[in-house]
Amino acid sequence: MDQLKQLNDRIISRVNVNLSEFDFDTEGFVTNALDYEKMLKFYAFYGITSHHPIYFHFKNSNVAGSYFLGKCYVGRSAIYKSDIRGDELKRRGDNIRCAKNIPLVEDEMITIRDSLLYKTLVHSNSHNLESPEQFGIHNTISAHYVNIHGSTLEGCFLGPFATLDLMNLHSCIVGEFAYVQAGELFHRKIDPGTVWIRNQSFEFKYKFKKEVLKKYVGINSSHQPRGIIYDFVKEREHDYEKLFDVMNLEPIKAPKSSAVNRYAVIQGRTRIGENVLISQRAFLDNAVMGDGSNAQENTYIIHSTLEGLNVTAHGGKIIHSNIGLETFVGFNSFLNGKPDASIKIGEGCVVMPHTIIDPVAAIKIPDEHLVWGFIGSVEDIKTNTIALDDLAEVRESLKIGKMVFNGKGSVFIDAFKRRIAQILLTNGALFENGEKRGHAQDDQNISFNIIQPYRTGARKGLYPSVRIQP
Amino acid sequence: MDQLKQLNDRIISRVNVNLSEFDFDTEGFVTNALDYEKMLKFYAFYGITSHHPIYFHFKNSNVAGSYFLGKCYVGRSAIYKSDIRGDELKRRGDNIRCAKNIPLVEDEMITIRDSLLYKTLVHSNSHNLESPEQFGIHNTISAHYVNIHGSTLEGCFLGPFATLDLMNLHSCIVGEFAYVQAGELFHRKIDPGTVWIRNQSFEFKYKFKKEVLKKYVGINSSHQPRGIIYDFVKEREHDYEKLFDVMNLEPIKAPKSSAVNRYAVIQGRTRIGENVLISQRAFLDNAVMGDGSNAQENTYIIHSTLEGLNVTAHGGKIIHSNIGLETFVGFNSFLNGKPDASIKIGEGCVVMPHTIIDPVAAIKIPDEHLVWGFIGSVEDIKTNTIALDDLAEVRESLKIGKMVFNGKGSVFIDAFKRRIAQILLTNGALFENGEKRGHAQDDQNISFNIIQPYRTGARKGLYPSVRIQP
Repeated sequence: MDQLKQLNDRIISRVNVNLSEFDFDTEGFVTNALDYEKMLKFYAFYGITSHHPIYFHFKNSNVAGSYFLGKCYVGRSAIYKSDIRGDELKRRGDNIRCAKNIPLVEDEMITIRDSLLYKTLVHSNSHNLESPEQFGIHNTISAHYVNIHGSTLEGCFLGPFATLDLMNLHSCIVGEFAYVQAGELFHRKIDPGTVWIRNQSFEFKYKFKKEVLKKYVGINSSHQPRGIIYDFVKEREHDYEKLFDVMNLEPIKAPKSSAVNRYAVIQGRTRIGENVLISQRAFLDNAVMGDGSNAQENTYIIHSTLEGLNVTAHGGKIIHSNIGLETFVGFNSFLNGKPDASIKIGEGCVVMPHTIIDPVAAIKIPDEHLVWGFIGSVEDIKTNTIALDDLAEVRESLKIGKMVFNGKGSVFIDAFKRRIAQILLTNGALFENGEKRGHAQDDQNISFNIIQPYRTGARKGLYPSVRIQP
Repeated sequence: MDQLKQLNDRIISRVNVNLSEFDFDTEGFVTNALDYEKMLKFYAFYGITSHHPIYFHFKNSNVAGSYFLGKCYVGRSAIYKSDIRGDELKRRGDNIRCAKNIPLVEDEMITIRDSLLYKTLVHSNSHNLESPEQFGIHNTISAHYVNIHGSTLEGCFLGPFATLDLMNLHSCIVGEFAYVQAGELFHRKIDPGTVWIRNQSFEFKYKFKKEVLKKYVGINSSHQPRGIIYDFVKEREHDYEKLFDVMNLEPIKAPKSSAVNRYAVIQGRTRIGENVLISQRAFLDNAVMGDGSNAQENTYIIHSTLEGLNVTAHGGKIIHSNIGLETFVGFNSFLNGKPDASIKIGEGCVVMPHTIIDPVAAIKIPDEHLVWGFIGSVEDIKTNTIALDDLAEVRESLKIGKMVFNGKGSVFIDAFKRRIAQILLTNGALFENGEKRGHAQDDQNISFNIIQPYRTGARKGLYPSVRIQP
């Protein structure tokens, strides 16, 4: 195990150097998170399809329980039960949009070096104009259930359930359950529970109250998660085990236009419509997935109906809820309905990333509303939602409850709606007559290859060097 | 599937060119043997341990159901449900023994190119002095249950259940159930059922009667096997399936000094002693494996006892038999005892490769005997065995029944006994106090990695290019 210990220590020292100005020591997190027994126990796997460019290169790393798709390089890293999903990487010849079009000279690749990713999702593609061919994560530690979405990272520590969206971070600390989409950040510390979107045209900012956040996603002194959302996830962990124990599973019944990943849990009376994508590590129990809806990694859809054309972004949790047509539920949102306190979200709504709705009585959000922050009762609706039409009227700034918005509301709404349309398209929700293929069609018939580490010797716990090409 | 079909055709044309003088067309065999559905269905796997040099490189091939260990290259080939076991390959710096010692400049590697191996075992290391670093199998087709043991091959066709032992063949056809250990052969056709050992000091030759051979291992017009031995194997095929369906199996109870491969079938009241090796695709049912005994690939030990220090060479089948201490059972031998017609082989015996004992009443071979050919009744013992002491007296030649021996009997016996001692040592049968480690100790704790082919597109059925290094 010598080399696994060295890997452990190397990651700590690399990240600590980057965060020295904050007097931040990652050792507590790493030592508590990495369990060498588990790093030996769980196999890693990568997907082979004829629809994705293929290149996997793993070196001097432990990748236990992780899944890889597309083009990925992992060196000197521990990637534990993470999803490195390279099915939206840019391809050679693609243009990146900025002042002038810049064509890619080779396919983009996810490159992870000297990093620890713990139950983390890496997806989309690099939105860093400086490295269009490289979606890089270096000298970085991400804690439980982080979403790294199209964001390049150098020397960062990301707390549990944080989301980094379409941006670049250098030497930053991002608190637990923070959502950030803010272009480029250097040497910044983002408070826990911050929901922050900023670009040249507008800024949206919300911060959870400390006592609320603590209840849902807290951390202990070594940055390990605790709280209702973590417990919820933890309780369902063992349901995944049988998926990993068996080589061949009876395929889940679904239309030909839909993809149900064999590493998704499908329970109860679940119905899957046309053009539906169910990703690995999604969890469905008594779920009705309307046509063109999707359930991405680490999403939970339980006793709920998605009416159709719904995006459930990575980590979204939807329980005893009815989600209207074309409504979007953002990253890590927690819609915690109960049998006697159900949630109904109308049509065409935008549930912002990291929204928590945890009602004590049945609750209903009208059509075409923006929803954010924490809603614990009917009273909270007025401080945590706004009709999109009203938001569109905002020219300069708006403050409702703890939310502050600056810029033109209409631009903000347009940007969101464009992005949702793009997500539906990419996921294959709009597939028709062989046109507009997306993940729901391309992620069928994946072959899964399985890799395991050395079980004895100095390299015990490390994986051999693996290189896979077409 | 286009590229899989091209692979198929390429192999046929390559081998046919090599065998054109015999007017031999391999198309019938290849087309009947390769079932594209099955080539898609079964996963391949390779072993990772800290005790073996590691290099796997597979390219433009289908390797469905096959197992790889050590250093292997496979290019433009179909390796179907075969075992490519490189745990006895020579290492860099090893000397090969000939007039002058020749040191190896790099680790030896098994290289398979433009070939089709069907349920074949490749093991040991190249005994070709001209290519000490390369154990090469090129332009070659081997049919069901062939043993390629330390033999390099170019442009050959090997019939079902043939064994090539420690030799080199160029443009040869080897008939079904033939065993050959004859140095180097060019452009030869070996008759079915020939058992032939030849070197500078002696020659042993036996040939099964046509009618006997036909009953046990026959072939049809496209060289597909039939007969009692093939049926025996076929009947037990489905018992392996559950081993491949499940990722984690309860380990079989065995002493710490013994290795039981997780891809072996272990049934009934089977007892495993110290220093025992059970290889993948071995089949044990009510077997008593005495200390230092082994069951290699494709062996079957059923309702039988191995007293200790026994070698059951690849493909050996032992049913309702008692095998005495230090007795050796050679490749593909079929000891077909029954409840009312059991077989007892004494101590220190040598059962020659490809021996068939199929008694109608209980049969007993005394201690220290050489056994060969076909024994169907007590009467056959006198024409198919000889006391080793009597054989040691032979100075020039000996003919018993259909067996012809030339040379000094004592040299033949010495050579055999030395080889058996070496096999026991290599297999870890003599392990004591941490000394004399062998496969029984080194083949524990193998990590198995699983690879699968493309399921769609032009490359459907081919595996992606895989390269694994330490």
